[in-house]
Amino acid sequence: MEHLQQSFTVQYNYNVFFTSALFAVDNTLFSDFLRQLNPAVTIKKILFIIDEGVAEAHTGLTSEIKQYFNQYSQTQLVQDIIVIPGGELVKNDTQYLDRVLEAINTHGIDRHSFVAAIGGGAVLDMVGYAATIAHRGIKHIRIPSTVLSQNDSGVGVKNGINYFNKKNFLGTFSPPVAVFNDELLLNSLSDRDWRSGIAEAIKVALIKDLEFFEWLEANATALANRDREAMNYQIWKCAKLHLEHIRSADPFENGSARPLDFGHWSAHKLEYLTNFEIRHGEAVAMGIALDTVYSNLSGRISAADAQRVIAVIQALGFELAHPLLQVNGANSPILQGLEEFREHLGGELTITLLTALGKGEEVHEIDADILKQAAELLQNQAAQHSTTTVL
Amino acid sequence: MEHLQQSFTVQYNYNVFFTSALFAVDNTLFSDFLRQLNPAVTIKKILFIIDEGVAEAHTGLTSEIKQYFNQYSQTQLVQDIIVIPGGELVKNDTQYLDRVLEAINTHGIDRHSFVAAIGGGAVLDMVGYAATIAHRGIKHIRIPSTVLSQNDSGVGVKNGINYFNKKNFLGTFSPPVAVFNDELLLNSLSDRDWRSGIAEAIKVALIKDLEFFEWLEANATALANRDREAMNYQIWKCAKLHLEHIRSADPFENGSARPLDFGHWSAHKLEYLTNFEIRHGEAVAMGIALDTVYSNLSGRISAADAQRVIAVIQALGFELAHPLLQVNGANSPILQGLEEFREHLGGELTITLLTALGKGEEVHEIDADILKQAAELLQNQAAQHSTTTVL
Repeated sequence: MEHLQQSFTVQYNYNVFFTSALFAVDNTLFSDFLRQLNPAVTIKKILFIIDEGVAEAHTGLTSEIKQYFNQYSQTQLVQDIIVIPGGELVKNDTQYLDRVLEAINTHGIDRHSFVAAIGGGAVLDMVGYAATIAHRGIKHIRIPSTVLSQNDSGVGVKNGINYFNKKNFLGTFSPPVAVFNDELLLNSLSDRDWRSGIAEAIKVALIKDLEFFEWLEANATALANRDREAMNYQIWKCAKLHLEHIRSADPFENGSARPLDFGHWSAHKLEYLTNFEIRHGEAVAMGIALDTVYSNLSGRISAADAQRVIAVIQALGFELAHPLLQVNGANSPILQGLEEFREHLGGELTITLLTALGKGEEVHEIDADILKQAAELLQNQAAQHSTTTVL
Repeated sequence: MEHLQQSFTVQYNYNVFFTSALFAVDNTLFSDFLRQLNPAVTIKKILFIIDEGVAEAHTGLTSEIKQYFNQYSQTQLVQDIIVIPGGELVKNDTQYLDRVLEAINTHGIDRHSFVAAIGGGAVLDMVGYAATIAHRGIKHIRIPSTVLSQNDSGVGVKNGINYFNKKNFLGTFSPPVAVFNDELLLNSLSDRDWRSGIAEAIKVALIKDLEFFEWLEANATALANRDREAMNYQIWKCAKLHLEHIRSADPFENGSARPLDFGHWSAHKLEYLTNFEIRHGEAVAMGIALDTVYSNLSGRISAADAQRVIAVIQALGFELAHPLLQVNGANSPILQGLEEFREHLGGELTITLLTALGKGEEVHEIDADILKQAAELLQNQAAQHSTTTVL
C-alpha cells in the first residue's frame, strides 16, 4: 500500500508583558489577559505556585492575589496557593513536581484553566513541566522574579526537571500562554542575583547586536549601581533578542540549530563542579570572557575588542576566571567539559565564537593550547584586580 | 515598556508506511528511513521496546531485529531490547515508564537517536510519552501491532500514561517521526482483537465518508472472516481519514476543536465500569450504535439509515448493547458518564451525532428520555439475536 504523508504546522503565540505591581487591584493587565483567552469556556480556574524566596521577600503577595481575584472574579482562583522552595532543589526532588500535579488533579485544573508560576528560573522550569504533561498541556503563565528569568529563561519555550542527576533530563519545549515581567519583584534580589542575570545580555549582545553591546558598555556602572531604568531597558532588550532568536531559528530544536549558548559550554561544567555555588550568570560571565579571549587568540577579533568585553564584565562586578577553568594537562575538568559537550551534541562539537563584537560564528574544533593560553591570561588579569590590559 | 510579541509556527511531518515483514533482511524500508534522517549526525542509536504479547507471538522477532541491524549497521542498535507487558498495566504502573527512561539514560540515547516501540496502543502511548519527555524529546518510531493502533491510535499525535487513577492524566501531543504498519503482526491477534479495531473505521466513516461506510457494509463479512486484503484496505483508509482530520483541524487541540470521538463518550464510561474487560473497540461499537439510534430518534437520520449502521456492527460480530448503558433513573452510570464528560470538556457538553451517513454534527445537549429509549431499543434488538428491524 502507498504510504501516507502527514504534514501540518502548529502556530504558537504569546506576549511578554512589562509592568509594575502586577496584582495591585487597579492593574487590569493580568485580568484583561485572562478574560480575552477562550471567552466561550464557562469555567476557568487559575492555580498559583510561588517560589518560597519570593513569598518571603514579598509577604503581602498571597493576600494581594486573593484580593485581586475577588475583584476580577471571572476566573476562579484556587484558594490553596502553593509555596515551594526555589533553586535547583525544586528540580532535583520530584516531590515538588508531584505536589503541583496533585494540586492540578485535586482542584480540577483542566485544559481551559491556568497554572501560574511566580519565581526564579528553577521554579518556572519545574512548574512549566508539570503544566505541560498534565492533561497533555495546561495553559501556563510565567511570572519571573529574577533578572535571569525576566530577560532570558522565563521568556523562552523550554521547561524541565533534573533526573538521574542530569540537568533537564526530563522536559519539553512548550511555550507559555503569557509572561508577565513585574519590575517590583526585582527589588528583593541580592546584588549578586541582580548582577548575575546581566550575563545573558552580554552574551546575546556579543553574538547578535553591537549597538546593544555598546549600550551595555555605557550603562555597566548604572546597572551595577541598581539603576532601575537601565535594568528595565536591559531586560526588555535582552528578552526581545532572545524571542527573535527563538522564532528565527528552530524553536523546538528539531534540526541541528543550536540554542543561544555563547560562553555556556564551560559555564555548565563550572556550575556543576562547584555544586552550583557559582551562580549560572557568574559562570556564564567567565565563560564569555574565556570564549572572547579565545576568539582573539585564534585570530577572529582584535585584542582591543576582547578587552572591551572584559571591561564590561568587570565593570558589572563579575569575576573573570576560576581555577577550575584552567587547562593543566589532558585531564583538566574544562577539557572533560568540552568532551561531554561534544557527546551531548551527538558527536559533533559546535561552539560559538566571535568574529566581531555583535557577530558570532559556529566552530567545530577547539585548540587545547589556545584554550590554555586564554584561561591563563584571564587568570592573570583577574589576579591584578584591575582592568589593566594584559592581552 | 511596550510588550513583546512572540509568534512562530512549527512544522511537523511524518509518514505512515505499510509493509510486510518489516525486519526481514531484504526489506530496506526501515533502514532507508533511518539513513535519510539527519545524515550529518555521526552517532545515531536506536533503542527498541517490545510489547510482551508481540514478543511471545513472534518468537523470532528479537533476533530478527539484531540480524537486521548487523546488515544495516549505519544505525547502532542497543543490544538490550526491552520487553514489557502490554495493555493498561503498562500505563498504570510507572515502573515501566522508569524502565524506558533508565534505558534511554544508560544507553546514551540523545536527541539524534531513536526510540522504537513495537506493540499495542498502550505500549505505544507509554513509550511515546517516555521519548517525548526525555531530553525534551527523542525521535520516536511507532510500530503498531494491533488493528486499533494501526488504523487509529498509533498513527496520531497523542501519548500518555494513567496517573491518579485517571486515564492519560500525564501525556503530551508529540508526533512520531514515522509509523510502520506491518501486516504480519496482525496474524497473531485473537478474533476479538482483530474485530475490535474495526469500530474506529465505522466511526470515522459515519462522520466523514459515506463511500467508506458503504465499503464497510460490502466488506463486513470478509473482515469478520479475517480476509487479509479487506483488512489492509480498512486500515489504510481509516488511518488516512484519521491523519486528514488531525491536520485539517487543530492537531494539538489548543482551541476548542474536538477530537474524532463519535460514539466515544459512553464507551469510555463502559470500559471503565467493566474494568476494561470490554475492549475499547467493543465499547465504541456499542457507543456508535447508541449515538446512531439517538440520531434517528432525535429526528436527524432515518430509521433505515440507523438500521444500516446496526447491521454493519452486527455483521462484524460486535455486541450492540450492555446493561450498564441503560438509563434506569437519574443516577444511571451512563448519565453520570455524560456529566463527567461535560466536566472533562470544561463545562460545555459537545457530542457528535449524525445528520446523515457520512456526516457528523456537534450538539451541546442530550435528552435523557431519548437516550433511555435508544438504549432500550438496542437492548431489545440485541436480545433477539437477529438483525430484525425494531426501529
